[in-house]
Amino acid sequence: VHYRVTLAYDGTDFAGWQLQAAGSRQRTVQGVLEDAIARLAGGVRVPVAGAGRTDAGVHALGQVACFELGRAIDPERLQRALNAMLPADLCVLHAAEAPAGFHARKSAVSKLYRYVLDTAPVQLPTRRRYAGHAPDLDPGRVAEAARLYLGRHDFASVASAGGSARTTVRSVTRSEPAWEGETLIYEIEAGGFLRKMARSLVGGLIAVGRGALSPDQLRQALLARDRRGWPAPAPARGLTLVRVDYAALR
Amino acid sequence: VHYRVTLAYDGTDFAGWQLQAAGSRQRTVQGVLEDAIARLAGGVRVPVAGAGRTDAGVHALGQVACFELGRAIDPERLQRALNAMLPADLCVLHAAEAPAGFHARKSAVSKLYRYVLDTAPVQLPTRRRYAGHAPDLDPGRVAEAARLYLGRHDFASVASAGGSARTTVRSVTRSEPAWEGETLIYEIEAGGFLRKMARSLVGGLIAVGRGALSPDQLRQALLARDRRGWPAPAPARGLTLVRVDYAALR
Repeated sequence: VHYRVTLAYDGTDFAGWQLQAAGSRQRTVQGVLEDAIARLAGGVRVPVAGAGRTDAGVHALGQVACFELGRAIDPERLQRALNAMLPADLCVLHAAEAPAGFHARKSAVSKLYRYVLDTAPVQLPTRRRYAGHAPDLDPGRVAEAARLYLGRHDFASVASAGGSARTTVRSVTRSEPAWEGETLIYEIEAGGFLRKMARSLVGGLIAVGRGALSPDQLRQALLARDRRGWPAPAPARGLTLVRVDYAALR
Repeated sequence: VHYRVTLAYDGTDFAGWQLQAAGSRQRTVQGVLEDAIARLAGGVRVPVAGAGRTDAGVHALGQVACFELGRAIDPERLQRALNAMLPADLCVLHAAEAPAGFHARKSAVSKLYRYVLDTAPVQLPTRRRYAGHAPDLDPGRVAEAARLYLGRHDFASVASAGGSARTTVRSVTRSEPAWEGETLIYEIEAGGFLRKMARSLVGGLIAVGRGALSPDQLRQALLARDRRGWPAPAPARGLTLVRVDYAALR
């Protein structure tokens, strides 16, 4: 039977989503989840596919994963049993039987990420774990930079070297900065994301927002399709995978 | 010269505010701050007084402390110099010269604490560090319990054994539950707090909110002035010292 789970995690103490090479001692979300499922399945190890391969330190409120179990189990019992075994920084928010052919990554039609950025001169210690920090950004310039990302572009300039994508063309359907006092809450939605794309695009907002680049220079850097001209990515701790959408399931 | 600083900290990795006995290896806010001030003062160690002796795990957004330095230093330079030396989980939000006779604890006229409590069935991993968790509380019952705390009472029932207060009578001037979705944000303000008083009063709200006690039973438990009949205190991680007020300085 095929199952689909919605996951939340605090990425701080994970080396990202993806299972590392055999023998690696790195703690990954996929590895910890597969361990728990194996205990549930009496030691039988099954592979788990995740919708987004979040980097080390990136959080999730709505990551989606799927896997196959040999025997049927009530989804609510599955959720409770997994949560009883999972560590405090990873939990199952929802479990359901998945339709035939469903794949957490391949069936996804869009993903929504949120980046939280404190812009006050001193960042509060209680915010460090879940927000980046870049003092004195100009909201008008940030908004102008965010508009540049909207639409279908070749995002080769923000594609990290380690990525495996065949094409670097992606469609950004939402790119919205919002402010709560001195905190920037930036939401970006796209059909798919290249490796480190979300953090690199936030790096672009920061560079323009503090005046290191003009909006036009950022536009040129995007058109150049060259990673070397792009500002540094924002730190992982401010980024959260908020939601994954599946057309057939809405 | 007498100085006053406003501090914010993430209490997770501190064994509370107060310096432990000599030889103790426990990391306290007071100890870390005194170390930084000693480095600034060329090795001369000066005692620091704090407004509230927060427990291990309790956070602060507006703790106030005062100390004496042998030579005058511009308060903004003092803030920057201390922040350059302090660890990431402790920072100085503001520094100023303090008037003669000012004492961070003795001059305080009131303190405001905030407790954040998630009441959804499953707590999000990203909220565990800064919020307690108690599923399925009834907002009407929580509001009724919170009203019982308002005014001048003998709070002996919530005075922890280790406290040093001469009297257990305190005046609570604010006791306000507010809700953001399934998250309870409770603010309590009083002229002074007994040791673990804030967390114990939240424990009372939880007991009534989930139906373990009736509001009248909680009122009787308060009148009894006996710690044994009072519900367990809520965990430290949900509590934050938000603000300390000083009459003469407003």
